[in-house]
Amino acid sequence: MSQSKSRDPDVLHRHLRDVQELLSRQRLVDELVHRQQMPHRDLVESITHKQNLARLQRKLDRLHPADIAWILETLPLADRLFVWELVRADKDGDILLEVSDAVRASLLETMDHYALKAMALGLDADELADLAPDLPAEVVQAVLAALDQDEQAHVRAAMSYPEGTVGALMDFDLIKVREQVTLGAVLRYLRRFGALPDHTDKLFVVDREERFRGLLTLESLLVNAPERTVSEVMKSRAVVTFRPDDDARAAAQAFERYDLVSVPVVSERDRVIGRLTVDDMVDYIREESEAEILGNVGLREEEDLFAPVIRSVKNRWAWLAVNLITAFVASRVIDLFQDSIGQLVALAALMPIVAGIGGNAGNQTITMIVRAIAMGQVESAALGRLLRKELGVALINGLVWGGVIGVLAGVLYGSPGLGLVMIAAMTLNLLLAATAGVLIPLLRQRFGGDPALGSSVLITALTDSGGFFIFLGLATLLLL
Amino acid sequence: MSQSKSRDPDVLHRHLRDVQELLSRQRLVDELVHRQQMPHRDLVESITHKQNLARLQRKLDRLHPADIAWILETLPLADRLFVWELVRADKDGDILLEVSDAVRASLLETMDHYALKAMALGLDADELADLAPDLPAEVVQAVLAALDQDEQAHVRAAMSYPEGTVGALMDFDLIKVREQVTLGAVLRYLRRFGALPDHTDKLFVVDREERFRGLLTLESLLVNAPERTVSEVMKSRAVVTFRPDDDARAAAQAFERYDLVSVPVVSERDRVIGRLTVDDMVDYIREESEAEILGNVGLREEEDLFAPVIRSVKNRWAWLAVNLITAFVASRVIDLFQDSIGQLVALAALMPIVAGIGGNAGNQTITMIVRAIAMGQVESAALGRLLRKELGVALINGLVWGGVIGVLAGVLYGSPGLGLVMIAAMTLNLLLAATAGVLIPLLRQRFGGDPALGSSVLITALTDSGGFFIFLGLATLLLL
Repeated sequence: MSQSKSRDPDVLHRHLRDVQELLSRQRLVDELVHRQQMPHRDLVESITHKQNLARLQRKLDRLHPADIAWILETLPLADRLFVWELVRADKDGDILLEVSDAVRASLLETMDHYALKAMALGLDADELADLAPDLPAEVVQAVLAALDQDEQAHVRAAMSYPEGTVGALMDFDLIKVREQVTLGAVLRYLRRFGALPDHTDKLFVVDREERFRGLLTLESLLVNAPERTVSEVMKSRAVVTFRPDDDARAAAQAFERYDLVSVPVVSERDRVIGRLTVDDMVDYIREESEAEILGNVGLREEEDLFAPVIRSVKNRWAWLAVNLITAFVASRVIDLFQDSIGQLVALAALMPIVAGIGGNAGNQTITMIVRAIAMGQVESAALGRLLRKELGVALINGLVWGGVIGVLAGVLYGSPGLGLVMIAAMTLNLLLAATAGVLIPLLRQRFGGDPALGSSVLITALTDSGGFFIFLGLATLLLL
Repeated sequence: MSQSKSRDPDVLHRHLRDVQELLSRQRLVDELVHRQQMPHRDLVESITHKQNLARLQRKLDRLHPADIAWILETLPLADRLFVWELVRADKDGDILLEVSDAVRASLLETMDHYALKAMALGLDADELADLAPDLPAEVVQAVLAALDQDEQAHVRAAMSYPEGTVGALMDFDLIKVREQVTLGAVLRYLRRFGALPDHTDKLFVVDREERFRGLLTLESLLVNAPERTVSEVMKSRAVVTFRPDDDARAAAQAFERYDLVSVPVVSERDRVIGRLTVDDMVDYIREESEAEILGNVGLREEEDLFAPVIRSVKNRWAWLAVNLITAFVASRVIDLFQDSIGQLVALAALMPIVAGIGGNAGNQTITMIVRAIAMGQVESAALGRLLRKELGVALINGLVWGGVIGVLAGVLYGSPGLGLVMIAAMTLNLLLAATAGVLIPLLRQRFGGDPALGSSVLITALTDSGGFFIFLGLATLLLL
């Protein structure tokens, strides 16, 4: 049984190594020719050259587009473009849809308008709508002009919905049937198709005016007698449908919750205009969680590992700038207490501990609350209850950890007073962190913002400046 | 069209508010009765009471188990248990499978052995295997004894595979057919089933010895003439299969890459022993990304929002302890330079800036590298190349941001030398962060660890202590 799809990373790595080996042989031959160290062996060389290329091309022809996409992402730029040249043109579109944004840009740059048009004409309407923003406007116009009216309408519809909506993710490959026909007639109708659209687990039942009436699962088509009518076996109650302007995140949660494979997208006038399938939802869920993890450290997008340094700098600078500003503010807070530090230098050594524990605990709280908001579970839970709980946790942590560190500091510096100030400052900063950890995401949500975005930077800024202020202020008041 | 499944959070919230309203009415009645403020209205009261309960129960009966699970997670403990009592027993199992681990424990505590047994007997083998670790051993034994041999074998098989393998996620609901029969015969065979297993998009073709031969998609069953045989239309090349001990993460990537709905799990002797379906993969992907986000701030598990304070403290303490230790080390580094700080107090104010930018940049680098390792794209990319790129980014950031802050510090404290030390220290700490950001995850992977786990704590520890040491050391050497 041939296995051109790779079910595990090892197989994928073997493909990669094969490609890399063929590439390096190729480079060796090119280099020797370039240096003219094989002047009399032109013929032999050119045969090896062609054999190599042919082997690489055969290898690529056998690979799934998703696997080629992975290999392209993994290769440095020069090798990537060399391989990209060898890929069969009819796979171009599928590969471009699979690669990350950064790598896609590097591949598109190498294609002329003719190749782009040929590639774009091979795409489905929803795929074309996905790629269109990355293509030159002339190419998009030319491709649209070559499509029939229905397809044009589909592309324009898909492009008209903003990112993050169901409309932007739906496809148009659906099979509609009428409710009064028999299952036997449906079976005969399906046999006229050479193939069904991907992820067809159900057909959509519509009336004469194309209004949505219910769902006919392939299952009910298969287990029921052919004499029965669609209306007898179709599902019309407790059916999940989406509208094109529904939030994609809510749709993904519905897929997850109800274990769906495909769902009809229905217009306001109850027409079936598209469908959402689980493969797109899997990609969406993965991309959302990627974006969240990258966003936590202020990375705007997935980086091409081999992107030029300057592009990486651009991807990362904003977060560093914001953090520098907050660090600068904290620095000014410390500067207020120059005299105190001059009198008692131990304060300088201990103050990062107070700030640090606040930041860590605050980030734990904020992560919990942001998760709960994303699951829709906070609005209803009383604010007061959450706050009381987090303050309780902070109080225990402050007394326990503050106690440990306070005693240690008191002994190290031979000053019980300093130890007590440490305990008090750590506890107060933890209480500040808990309050801010609950309030920041809730307030951001209240005012329509994304509770996750930048919350971590905000709370760290607060617990740093706050921690320094509390500790140095208490020390100034009580010890000096 | 009734819509008992909630396609968007608003509908879900409406259900929740209905439940909460019924609950609060109930509480009011209970309270009045308790206070005996309605002594002569017993009859009326008891009727209201019953009506309320009946309405709540009807509401719950109409809801999908996944939605009830969400409502239970969102309610405080007392309300949660009250609602749990009212849920129809036949939904118990599905709900328990849906709720988070923390909430599941709170629900299981209320059930006696009899109820647990009844619930467990309603589960499929793979579901029972999932819940078994949370159930009392006697209950598991009793339930196993009540199953037939095949089912017992399935449960034991599913329980025997460690978490994170395909075997632990597979189910046993599969339909096998022989290759020599006609599609018409398969269609007649399917009609004998009342229903097909969930997510059946293909049947598994086996030979006389039950060895895997290929896949018969429902699509090919529907679009081909009934006279054709299974062997003529089945797919046996480029077919994805898993082995039960394959890594679940690799399986999830295969589902994502090849847009799969169900995949056969095949033993070493080529027998079909189970299957993996996309709904389980969606849950797996979601859980993995949750675990990663929670793990980033050292939370061991999703917290029940209404868990007692002490349980939350336990969930969070380890990370705080590790961070305190690293902060303490950094504090000792600062303490080495007591004399320098005593002479030039501005150092105390500026040192957190140097440490902070190193931590931020290091976390960006490490997040990039950990992502690339998870996608399998680093092993092959040369270490040297990655390191050069990150050092380049660090150098630019150091000179730019170090320059800005250095000039600012120089002006603020009227000391050009201090400004130059800032620039040098920030650049050096960023170079340290870049080196560590590349090396830490790669070394952890080399030695078989999880590159993500605790990497952020490690790098922050390094850039804090390192930043303090570099800055205070340079200042001591050059300025004092």
